[in-house]
Amino acid sequence: MKKFIDNIHILKDETIIENGFIEIEDGIISNIGESSNNKANTLALDLKGKRILAIPGMINSHTHSGMAALKGAGDDLPFEQWLFQTIIPLEEQLDDEMIYLSTMISQMEMARNGITTFVDMYMMLDSIIKAVDEFGMRAYICRGLQDDSLEDGQRLQKNIKAYEKYHGTANGRISVGFGPHSPYLCSKEYLKKIADVAQELNALIHIHLKESQKESHQYTFRELANIGLFNTQTIAAHCVYADSDDIQVLKEFNVSVAHNPSSNLKLANGIAPIEKMHQEGVNVCLGTDSVSSNNSLDLFKEMLLASLIHKGETKDPQAIPAIVSFKMATSNGANAVGQKNIGLLEKGMRADIAFLDMDNINLFPLIKPISNIVYSGRGSDVIATMVDGDFIYYFGTYPKINEEAIKKQFMEKYVKLYK
Amino acid sequence: MKKFIDNIHILKDETIIENGFIEIEDGIISNIGESSNNKANTLALDLKGKRILAIPGMINSHTHSGMAALKGAGDDLPFEQWLFQTIIPLEEQLDDEMIYLSTMISQMEMARNGITTFVDMYMMLDSIIKAVDEFGMRAYICRGLQDDSLEDGQRLQKNIKAYEKYHGTANGRISVGFGPHSPYLCSKEYLKKIADVAQELNALIHIHLKESQKESHQYTFRELANIGLFNTQTIAAHCVYADSDDIQVLKEFNVSVAHNPSSNLKLANGIAPIEKMHQEGVNVCLGTDSVSSNNSLDLFKEMLLASLIHKGETKDPQAIPAIVSFKMATSNGANAVGQKNIGLLEKGMRADIAFLDMDNINLFPLIKPISNIVYSGRGSDVIATMVDGDFIYYFGTYPKINEEAIKKQFMEKYVKLYK
Repeated sequence: MKKFIDNIHILKDETIIENGFIEIEDGIISNIGESSNNKANTLALDLKGKRILAIPGMINSHTHSGMAALKGAGDDLPFEQWLFQTIIPLEEQLDDEMIYLSTMISQMEMARNGITTFVDMYMMLDSIIKAVDEFGMRAYICRGLQDDSLEDGQRLQKNIKAYEKYHGTANGRISVGFGPHSPYLCSKEYLKKIADVAQELNALIHIHLKESQKESHQYTFRELANIGLFNTQTIAAHCVYADSDDIQVLKEFNVSVAHNPSSNLKLANGIAPIEKMHQEGVNVCLGTDSVSSNNSLDLFKEMLLASLIHKGETKDPQAIPAIVSFKMATSNGANAVGQKNIGLLEKGMRADIAFLDMDNINLFPLIKPISNIVYSGRGSDVIATMVDGDFIYYFGTYPKINEEAIKKQFMEKYVKLYK
Repeated sequence: MKKFIDNIHILKDETIIENGFIEIEDGIISNIGESSNNKANTLALDLKGKRILAIPGMINSHTHSGMAALKGAGDDLPFEQWLFQTIIPLEEQLDDEMIYLSTMISQMEMARNGITTFVDMYMMLDSIIKAVDEFGMRAYICRGLQDDSLEDGQRLQKNIKAYEKYHGTANGRISVGFGPHSPYLCSKEYLKKIADVAQELNALIHIHLKESQKESHQYTFRELANIGLFNTQTIAAHCVYADSDDIQVLKEFNVSVAHNPSSNLKLANGIAPIEKMHQEGVNVCLGTDSVSSNNSLDLFKEMLLASLIHKGETKDPQAIPAIVSFKMATSNGANAVGQKNIGLLEKGMRADIAFLDMDNINLFPLIKPISNIVYSGRGSDVIATMVDGDFIYYFGTYPKINEEAIKKQFMEKYVKLYK
């Protein structure tokens, strides 16, 4: 069945097509352009008299969606106290149901902010995948992996089983990848084993690299490349302490960097050399990290930070202009997961779209759309979000789930968690 | 006439009073506390079934509200190109009507984001004051002053006349102060003249100090103190390049610093030593600066940046915790203008209040309110804003003005400006 949205403004490259249309068939943009005035077609989006701008759905390239219950836990604490005395003891109490509920809450926040795809790293994949299947987002779900004598390699086996069972399901919305936590929690042998498996399956690797100063001299990216870690599609989160040689390796092996400016600042790790990576041609995308280190799941915030902090850091007002941040949150995210049919609004792409209210006062006057979106926009400007042509957020509601029931169940378990 | 708001949540210090009430008489909070269930009183705020949290109206301690027409002009440009080739040529075309309309647009954005008071520096004060009088905000309006042979001291004379005519009008909502632009645009003699006048009138001085690296060795704050510049209530905007001696002078003379993190980053000036100032006991407040260097008028954004960037800069995750940023945007702002009856929700204070929707997904779960407001909140969480007990923003509308007419007039002139 064809769906048709007429009389809509569309962000095409850096300008706006006024009164355009989008036609969707089987979850794909089958046609897009200036208005056809084809009033006979289905109006899939009731515009309610608003001037609405369609932009590509955003791609959150690094998060831990099961951590909604840890939002704000350990704010303003030193790192060791945050991780070992707050986050880990709480995580040990999370069960399958709480991971499911947390992933639902996280998807609500992401969808409300115009995010259509996320790249995840966490545990209890069955629960996460159940939540993604029901909610309707697109996701790359990776098991957090670390050497652990207690589990005797069971984690990797479970990750492989999850891949076999779920990869490519939900009409292709669900992908399964591998999430070796970091070189400081994974031995070289273990990393090599994961890399070999991922390469064989042609699966995504999602890893934390050089997030903190402590790691800056523990390993080089060349050593990781030599293990074979970068022989498959890889997203390296953070890279705050990547040096020039590391950046060359990222470029050489086409490794994508998930930049998480809020998290890096909040945990006092610092500012990643993103301007340099951008100049060198590294594919940089944007992530929110989890709500325990951010505390939002909002790429408008991360776009803003990316376009602000690197100017301040490099003392160059031309560093990371608005259009670069916008691409990081959209098409670069698509490149990072190796998905050629998301991240842009063009014929033949998946219909993953965020719709913004152009009349909000923070966007007024909307003359330079990319500038307004990055420097003045916010997640609350999104009035509807769709994945594969289906609304997952629509004027304050989540069409595919029972919002109130999920929030209620979540709060019941949340209160017990903090007792 | 007494106004009464019942069944409301109230932010009291760092915790929430559930189901509290606020009673307002003659623009002042005449009573506040836990619910009296006094259903007979006027319900001034229709809660529409929402859980609403009242917080003190925020104070924007540094802005140029007449610059709405320059929003986004010169984004991502080098400073000289931004100022001399973009901003100044545009400013030369602004007339009284455009300043009036711009100040209206700026107040819409501020009110929508929960700001109730702003400290301004710009030109054509009659137009700004007309807009403030009509819109209903509280404002400290200062003429931007600089040595200028063409005007032969007329600016200062005009500033004095504006003080005599308007200071304390609109039931005390409008205050007039003096805005010497900066030591690089004002000679010492001129600064001394302004300081003497301000001291005589007991008026506020609002100045840019050490915003850019160029200024770091041009003068010391001690030299400015010796002129007498700090003998009256003073707000020093930016202070990015304040050194240890400068910070001691700020403390000694009780000068307040308006921190503008977005603007300092966007113009690539850097990160002000705010953590150090805070440790030394300097009164730091928050400003948005103008929409040509921000591009928003939203203190939620500035609170977030203040609590993030100083952690990243100092590598201390405990730098500028959420409560400190929140105070910067509220009670410290009140201290900065020397106004003892705004910035807190207490009996006897002016009824300048912002009302937040607690059920927004970005604030969920709302267990640690200050953490949620600073790290996850945004201006769009505000559903109503009042000054002196009168709503200036109310569920998407601006009760005291004709929003559509103003936007239409603004856009007509805006289009001509950029021709």
